[in-house]
Formats: sequence, C-alpha cells, structure tokens
Amino acid sequence: MSDARETVQRYWAACEARDWKSFGELVAEEVVYQAPQTRERVRGRDAYVRFNAEFPGDWHIAVERAIGDGRHAATWIRFLVGGTEQPGLCFFDLDEQGRIGHITDFWPEPYDPPPGREHLVERY
Amino acid sequence: MSDARETVQRYWAACEARDWKSFGELVAEEVVYQAPQTRERVRGRDAYVRFNAEFPGDWHIAVERAIGDGRHAATWIRFLVGGTEQPGLCFFDLDEQGRIGHITDFWPEPYDPPPGREHLVERY
Repeated sequence: MSDARETVQRYWAACEARDWKSFGELVAEEVVYQAPQTRERVRGRDAYVRFNAEFPGDWHIAVERAIGDGRHAATWIRFLVGGTEQPGLCFFDLDEQGRIGHITDFWPEPYDPPPGREHLVERY
Repeated sequence: MSDARETVQRYWAACEARDWKSFGELVAEEVVYQAPQTRERVRGRDAYVRFNAEFPGDWHIAVERAIGDGRHAATWIRFLVGGTEQPGLCFFDLDEQGRIGHITDFWPEPYDPPPGREHLVERY
C-alpha cells in the first residue's frame, strides 16, 4: 500500500472517530490548509485541529476514493450530515517525514447543466 | 512512474492538444463519465470524445496535480478560458487493459465562507 494513501486513510478515520490526537499527529506542525472556493487559509497544527474539531453538526465521513502516489494523495469523500450529503475533494502534499504539510480542499455544489449537450448526455 | 498517473497525464495533454484520436484511445469503448453536480452522464467513447471536442471556447488546461495509484487516479486541473480560471477535480478508474473506464469530475464554484471560524482562518 502507498504510504501516502495509508496516511490519508488514517486521517479520515481519525476525523470520523473525533480522535483529534491521532489526527494532529498526521499533519505537520506547520501544516497549511487552503480552501480555494472561500479563499480561507488555516496555518499550523493547533489551529487546523481546532478548525476540524469545532466543525458543527453530527457529521460523518465516507471515503469514496483514497489515492496515494509518492508524496501526494487525493481523496473523494462523502460528507454526511442531517440526512444530506456533499462530496469533498481533498489534495494532500506530504513532507519528508511523511506528515501532511499542505491540504487543498474543494466542496462542489449542484448546478444546472449548461444547454447544448443534450444530444450526448443523460441525466441521473 | 505510476501507469495510472501517466495515463491521466496523457489524457490531459491530448485534451489540451485537441488530439481527439489519442484522447479516445486512452478511454475504454464503454467509458462512463459522470458529473455529480449536474447529474449528467455520458456513455461510450464516441459520445465522450464529442462531449469534450465540442466544448465551446478557447480553453486551456494546466495540470496542478496528477496522482496515480494502481487502477485509480485523480487530477486537479486549472481550466483557463477568456481570462478566467476554474479548478476541475477528476477521479478516474482504469480497466484491466489500463484504459479509463469511469470518470467522475467536479467543478467547484466560489462561495462565501460560513461565519464562526474567523478566529482560526485568514483570507487570501
């Protein structure tokens, strides 16, 4: 198994378990988290653990894909809360010690399909 | 290099080059593309090549990450058109012949950050 894949699988398992000690140990002291959609950035392990631990709601994580390759990994999760779910896409860069140093994540929302491709597309 | 990573790098290079013959050869005859945000699905190589070849605009692709792991891969691209750019996140499953059999992609849009985490977050 890819070490990077195993690391991000443990990351989501710790998150789901609210095991913030294990979660914190997987990320670098100087971890940088970025969310390009909101242009939010969180710096450092302590703030980043709190950012996750304080996230409201009785949410759950189901991992659809976890892909690791050298010092890089990506995950596609389903974020489940209150009967709804949203996909989350997360790209990770690991440091030399195998800790997660950079995280970029994305939370896409539904939208209407553009016109003009109905001849190629079905809806599901 | 991961074969899956190489395959998706060639996929985006062919797309950027409008080399639809090479692009088509990388996907399975029975390829299934799904876009969860619009709930659109495209089935089969011919339709999928047209779906891409007919996409309007003088667009360009810049690959930010390409990650391959066994029969799975993920990419984060910047889709550049008319002075704007949008991130695209794509998850690929390869078949036994190494062709791309399933594609799931996501096009996240900007949104306003939720309140209540200003104590942990900076904006960029």
